Amino acid sequence: MSQSFDIAVVGATGTVGETIVHILEERDFPVGELHLLASLESAGSSVPYRGKNVRVREVDAFDFTQVRMVFFAAGPAVTLSFADKARAAGCAVIDLSGALAQAQAPQVVPEANAQKLQGLPKPVQVSSPSPSATALAVVLAPLRGLLDIQRVNVTACLAVSAQGREAVSELARQTAELLNLRPLESTFFDRQMAFNLLAQVGKPDAQGHVPLEKRLVRELRDVLGMPGLKVSVTCVQAPVFFGDSFSVSVQLAGPVDLDAVNALLEAADSIELVEAGDYPTAVGDAVGQDVVYVGRVRHGVDDTSELNLWLTSDNVRKGAALNAVQVAELLIKDQL
Amino acid sequence: MSQSFDIAVVGATGTVGETIVHILEERDFPVGELHLLASLESAGSSVPYRGKNVRVREVDAFDFTQVRMVFFAAGPAVTLSFADKARAAGCAVIDLSGALAQAQAPQVVPEANAQKLQGLPKPVQVSSPSPSATALAVVLAPLRGLLDIQRVNVTACLAVSAQGREAVSELARQTAELLNLRPLESTFFDRQMAFNLLAQVGKPDAQGHVPLEKRLVRELRDVLGMPGLKVSVTCVQAPVFFGDSFSVSVQLAGPVDLDAVNALLEAADSIELVEAGDYPTAVGDAVGQDVVYVGRVRHGVDDTSELNLWLTSDNVRKGAALNAVQVAELLIKDQL
Ligand SMILES: NC(=O)c1ccc[n+]([C@@H]2O[C@H](COP(=O)([O-])OP(=O)(O)OC[C@H]3O[C@@H](n4cnc5c(N)ncnc54)[C@H](OP(=O)(O)O)[C@@H]3O)[C@@H](O)[C@H]2O)c1
Ligand SMILES: NC(=O)c1ccc[n+]([C@@H]2O[C@H](COP(=O)([O-])OP(=O)(O)OC[C@H]3O[C@@H](n4cnc5c(N)ncnc54)[C@H](OP(=O)(O)O)[C@@H]3O)[C@@H](O)[C@H]2O)c1
Repeated sequence: MSQSFDIAVVGATGTVGETIVHILEERDFPVGELHLLASLESAGSSVPYRGKNVRVREVDAFDFTQVRMVFFAAGPAVTLSFADKARAAGCAVIDLSGALAQAQAPQVVPEANAQKLQGLPKPVQVSSPSPSATALAVVLAPLRGLLDIQRVNVTACLAVSAQGREAVSELARQTAELLNLRPLESTFFDRQMAFNLLAQVGKPDAQGHVPLEKRLVRELRDVLGMPGLKVSVTCVQAPVFFGDSFSVSVQLAGPVDLDAVNALLEAADSIELVEAGDYPTAVGDAVGQDVVYVGRVRHGVDDTSELNLWLTSDNVRKGAALNAVQVAELLIKDQL
Repeated sequence: MSQSFDIAVVGATGTVGETIVHILEERDFPVGELHLLASLESAGSSVPYRGKNVRVREVDAFDFTQVRMVFFAAGPAVTLSFADKARAAGCAVIDLSGALAQAQAPQVVPEANAQKLQGLPKPVQVSSPSPSATALAVVLAPLRGLLDIQRVNVTACLAVSAQGREAVSELARQTAELLNLRPLESTFFDRQMAFNLLAQVGKPDAQGHVPLEKRLVRELRDVLGMPGLKVSVTCVQAPVFFGDSFSVSVQLAGPVDLDAVNALLEAADSIELVEAGDYPTAVGDAVGQDVVYVGRVRHGVDDTSELNLWLTSDNVRKGAALNAVQVAELLIKDQL
């Protein structure tokens, strides 16, 4: 008899939460009872799961002792309000909001640092990093042994779906307004998002860094286990609905053997390396997929100590929901 | 009596050529007779100049002895076919196609290396660099004295207008097709350009570099007079009609004083530094302007030897037509 686990998804009506439910079904996760939670606003609505419509309930009234594990996918404020309650009820917590401190809930990307899940105090709390850190970690992890990495330069071109459903509708609406020569309105974004790039995703601190950039540096160091790694990062909001793209330039202590890099990328389960001379795109390749796509693997224009890569990844799926479910799969093996 | 100069613009019906004509008028360039040239296809059409419609003629039949100076804005093949003829007729040549070798026609961005125009063999030949190299040179030139630059990392997010009129129509058409849920067609681009990013602008060589990237590295070194400069570059085609954006990370030998950087950028005529905490965009700021916009001036997340910048520039205007006209203005001062 195989064991099953009662599970709650907080934020089940959202972009990430719905995808978690979908992936639990797809991967045949041994779910016993599934509890879908959201705010009062969507309590009473339902989400499809295994051919049935599962009713969504309000998180405020939920009795966490009913479940063994909770996914938090409803924003940092909701995690901060309910994670302690869940833990007090004995639930394992997997947070996708970035709200929990690293010491409390380590960032885990199974392809890079699954060992972090061993020996955590019970009930365990784990964080699924930002989609950018997740994609970069998946690709850089298998190269750690080969490369003496001095610095990683990243320009992350992020999909609007990373900002939730309002952002998606605004890009669609603005685009239609422009094509129909109607006056343009910005309510979610601070200016025209359609046919434009916005270089600041979030509010900058006094030093000019936005939270997303600081988070990416911190999470990438944690997940790769390279606390001193130099990471130079700019996050850009691109007029793309789904799928993140990353322009990555890695500086190495010495010349890098591209054949060896390609062999390691080719061998990694969670990476799809496209053919030499080709390149992946967010929309055409990564969206809906369980792997991070890699292309344009090359040296610098005349610098063999530089490794350049172009990555694309489904921010909602590979960058968030799937990573969280992969963590859950490891937890139920030996930590629950 | 002020002197005037008879001038030809080859490619006068194109995106860049039309803008050259417009800027010659706007800046009151001392044009005597203006000859507008293109292919047989648009011979007979006309382009507005100083309130009149100037008839476009075929370049093949043109007698270059009629003019003192020729702008070539019709692609490399046209430059290679006619530049020698123009020079043999005694014309100064300003090429915007990138077809001429550096030894033959130095790359000039007046804000960075106007001195290159001195003492050139007559009749002079000058190249206006790619829009990316031009924008980067305008911004890095005033910082050369302050900074000990070790490396420049650039991700250039390029507007489709850099590829001419067909590319512009394809982005518009594809976007409308997607919004109307019609099947998508790609003829100019090799895949969906709307709501997507294409990481390879041109055909890569065996090493994976596209011509635009190699050109940017070469031109930037030439124009800045820094032959050993390490430049790491990725050119990305963005779903943006007009205006290029650049994510730039400069590595320095030691800590950089941001106040000093801001003061130099602020003082430069061809740069608009936006307020701290703000950032410029291609569409909202740079398009139609004579300056390169700079924002997000900041250190690395915890590295004061890193200088990060976000630039936006009008690829057609500041990146090409205006730069060429600025070169012409210097040439008529003392080289013609
Ligand atoms: N989208 C991504 O690419 C991505 C990737 C990684 C991590 N994340 C993180 O995941 C979280 C959710 O993002 P999302 O993109 O899925 O957002 P979303 O589409 O806007 O969905 C938000 C979800 O949270 C619920 N919610 C909001 N306020 C609530 C409250 N007070 N109490 C209970 N539930 C509440 C919403 O329920 P109602 O229907 O009741 O409003 C909805 O289910 C955020 O922390 C985000 O940063 C997002
Ligand atoms: N767009 C940019 O951002 C940009 C920036 C810097 C440099 N450039 C360079 O400037 C050049 C023109 O670019 P563009 O964007 O302006 O292209 P475009 O809009 O497609 O215009 C091309 C121009 O060249 C003419 N032409 C084409 N074939 C010709 C031929 N065989 N003989 C004579 N004229 C011919 C066209 O005339 P018809 O009307 O007769 O076809 C038209 O005037 C290219 O080399 C490009 O790389 C472009």
